[in-house]
Amino acid sequence: MITTSSVGIVHTQYFTFAEKESFRLESGAVLSPVTLAYETYGTLNEDRSNAILICHALSGSAHAAGFHAPDDDKAGWWDDCIGPGKAFDTDRYFVICSNVLGSCYGTTGPTETNPVTGKPYGLQFPVVTIGDMVRAQIRLIDHLGIDQLFCVAGGSMGGMQVLEWAAHYPQRLKAAIPLATTGRHSPMLIALSEVGRQAIYADPNWQSGDYYDKPQKPDAGLAVARMVGHITYLSDESMNLKFGRRLQDREKFGFQFQTEFQVESYLKYNGNNFTRRFDANSYLYVTKAMDYFDLTEPTGTLAGSFVHSADIKYLVVSFTSDWLYPTYHSKELVTALTAVNADVTFLDIESTWGHDAFLLEVETMTELLSSFLDRLWVEANGGRRGANGKWSVAGK
Amino acid sequence: MITTSSVGIVHTQYFTFAEKESFRLESGAVLSPVTLAYETYGTLNEDRSNAILICHALSGSAHAAGFHAPDDDKAGWWDDCIGPGKAFDTDRYFVICSNVLGSCYGTTGPTETNPVTGKPYGLQFPVVTIGDMVRAQIRLIDHLGIDQLFCVAGGSMGGMQVLEWAAHYPQRLKAAIPLATTGRHSPMLIALSEVGRQAIYADPNWQSGDYYDKPQKPDAGLAVARMVGHITYLSDESMNLKFGRRLQDREKFGFQFQTEFQVESYLKYNGNNFTRRFDANSYLYVTKAMDYFDLTEPTGTLAGSFVHSADIKYLVVSFTSDWLYPTYHSKELVTALTAVNADVTFLDIESTWGHDAFLLEVETMTELLSSFLDRLWVEANGGRRGANGKWSVAGK
Repeated sequence: MITTSSVGIVHTQYFTFAEKESFRLESGAVLSPVTLAYETYGTLNEDRSNAILICHALSGSAHAAGFHAPDDDKAGWWDDCIGPGKAFDTDRYFVICSNVLGSCYGTTGPTETNPVTGKPYGLQFPVVTIGDMVRAQIRLIDHLGIDQLFCVAGGSMGGMQVLEWAAHYPQRLKAAIPLATTGRHSPMLIALSEVGRQAIYADPNWQSGDYYDKPQKPDAGLAVARMVGHITYLSDESMNLKFGRRLQDREKFGFQFQTEFQVESYLKYNGNNFTRRFDANSYLYVTKAMDYFDLTEPTGTLAGSFVHSADIKYLVVSFTSDWLYPTYHSKELVTALTAVNADVTFLDIESTWGHDAFLLEVETMTELLSSFLDRLWVEANGGRRGANGKWSVAGK
Repeated sequence: MITTSSVGIVHTQYFTFAEKESFRLESGAVLSPVTLAYETYGTLNEDRSNAILICHALSGSAHAAGFHAPDDDKAGWWDDCIGPGKAFDTDRYFVICSNVLGSCYGTTGPTETNPVTGKPYGLQFPVVTIGDMVRAQIRLIDHLGIDQLFCVAGGSMGGMQVLEWAAHYPQRLKAAIPLATTGRHSPMLIALSEVGRQAIYADPNWQSGDYYDKPQKPDAGLAVARMVGHITYLSDESMNLKFGRRLQDREKFGFQFQTEFQVESYLKYNGNNFTRRFDANSYLYVTKAMDYFDLTEPTGTLAGSFVHSADIKYLVVSFTSDWLYPTYHSKELVTALTAVNADVTFLDIESTWGHDAFLLEVETMTELLSSFLDRLWVEANGGRRGANGKWSVAGK
């Protein structure tokens, strides 16, 4: 529903680069051309100093806020935090979100046409990294005429992109907000990614990735991969609260192999739903990019990656029940950032919602993000904290 | 390798019942006949008071100790704890282990012949419960002429059977040792079971369970199910220690979709290996039995199930890094057992090994199990604790 706190109707835009020259990836492979799907909300100010880049997670898209049509029943994926008066306040900031390389929401990836063959890339699409995703975003930011972002923010895989920006392009951002994330994908995270990929490989309709012109897609495998994911986004406690051992539409056990418990029904619904909106090959590419992510390379320490990143202001957030990216990952980040004398605010937020908390704890996140951004905005623009506790800048 | 602490060469035996009358299941369905595969180690004493029943977990079998042939390279699944001088000391105890109903190691289950059709049951096999498994074990114990077991012990799904024995047949056992288990399968556990089942359903070779005479079995689906399982048996910490981000047989990323990390290689190996030793339909039946397990039924509380079970001595054990059956499950059990004034020893053992710890923490488990059993043995047989701290019974 479009309200006064909504950015309203928005349109996805497309930026194409590397049409003549090619875009070189970390693997050494090249792509040409590259298109990024992106959306923007709010207005870029005159000195181009109010831009915030939002980075999405595994299955996200450029559509972070607002609606594509008046009758859309669902807003963008982080609409709770992006809009007039919200945490990423579009009355003040120019918010940008682009779909990552390798995904399937309009950015170049395995579903898009390979100019060499005239057919979808499929597995001929090169393996991309978080670094490649970020370098593509830099091309977009250049295209938009922005020298320095006010902030880069994101959770989960979005947080990895934030850290990549901070570690390798520190002069391009003032502040970084990595949420529920890690500086290095752990073996447990790799294992969970791999199980999802194995479920896709095991689906005969996957056809080694060459299924785009076939009547059947590897939906069954992709659904299983998504179900594994959904379990990891929740927590033991949140599942106890949300589902318990309640049965779905029945009073007693059926003693048959059918969906009986509410939690089974939830997983199956979400697994199937996912196959209507996401591509199996993209799932492979995006999870692989996460598995490769390791900011302890090449120096051997996390701190080594941030030696030139001390001028950025950091807000690091973890959630107590997030067992996918447990608090110790964020603490390692904070230790590394502190070691290079960066300005770090760290919060481990008490929440039962597991990894999903970064999207679900709206009130806490709004307060936290707003106050962090407010402080920086005022520092950057000259201003003071009023008697009401709020920071203000004269005339802004 | 057969050593002096091994029970040596053992043979699986078979006990068939319900040949004329039928065996009624909790679902109301009936089975006839029912065969249980079982093994025994040690000697039943004259007054038949030294029998210990070991209950196995999801993928276990009756082969808990010793070797089937001199050149076997692998001993029974709990050989570390069963044998002369071991925790379940076969110089003193008569140890029994039987394969559960619905499994595929010789006990009646979906792989066995349905006498009505002359073909394997497949999905015509009725859904069984932990209660059904235990009532089949009772028939075996009756057949062996044992009125009261000295102890029933097991971890994970084995622990559920232990609790079922204690709750519903308290006069049939002196002691109960439920390890790394729960009195009620949680929604997270159900979710993980269901993902495994969905992986099997998604395999076209599953053929609604009717694959026994087909050239292909649903190996791909079963392997994925097992990979999910393996992740849950470990812990974040144990995976960091065991695998880290090390690559398997390579120095650098290959930027292709192949097994690269050691943890991926481990999962794939174990997933594939499992398909050579386990049946996909049995995986469905056994996981479903666990999902149905809930000792808060029908009274609404765990304590309600144990009101007649206060004379049993309990040793409840959990492990700090077990996120599949976290410590709070065991604490709930202890609270319930304490509420009915039972004699309970509870230990939450510090371990990095996750759920697998109950099989891997051999030294700790040996000490713990031995001292618990020693005390009971001495109490039961008259004896005293010597100056060396060990319990002894004159002439035993």
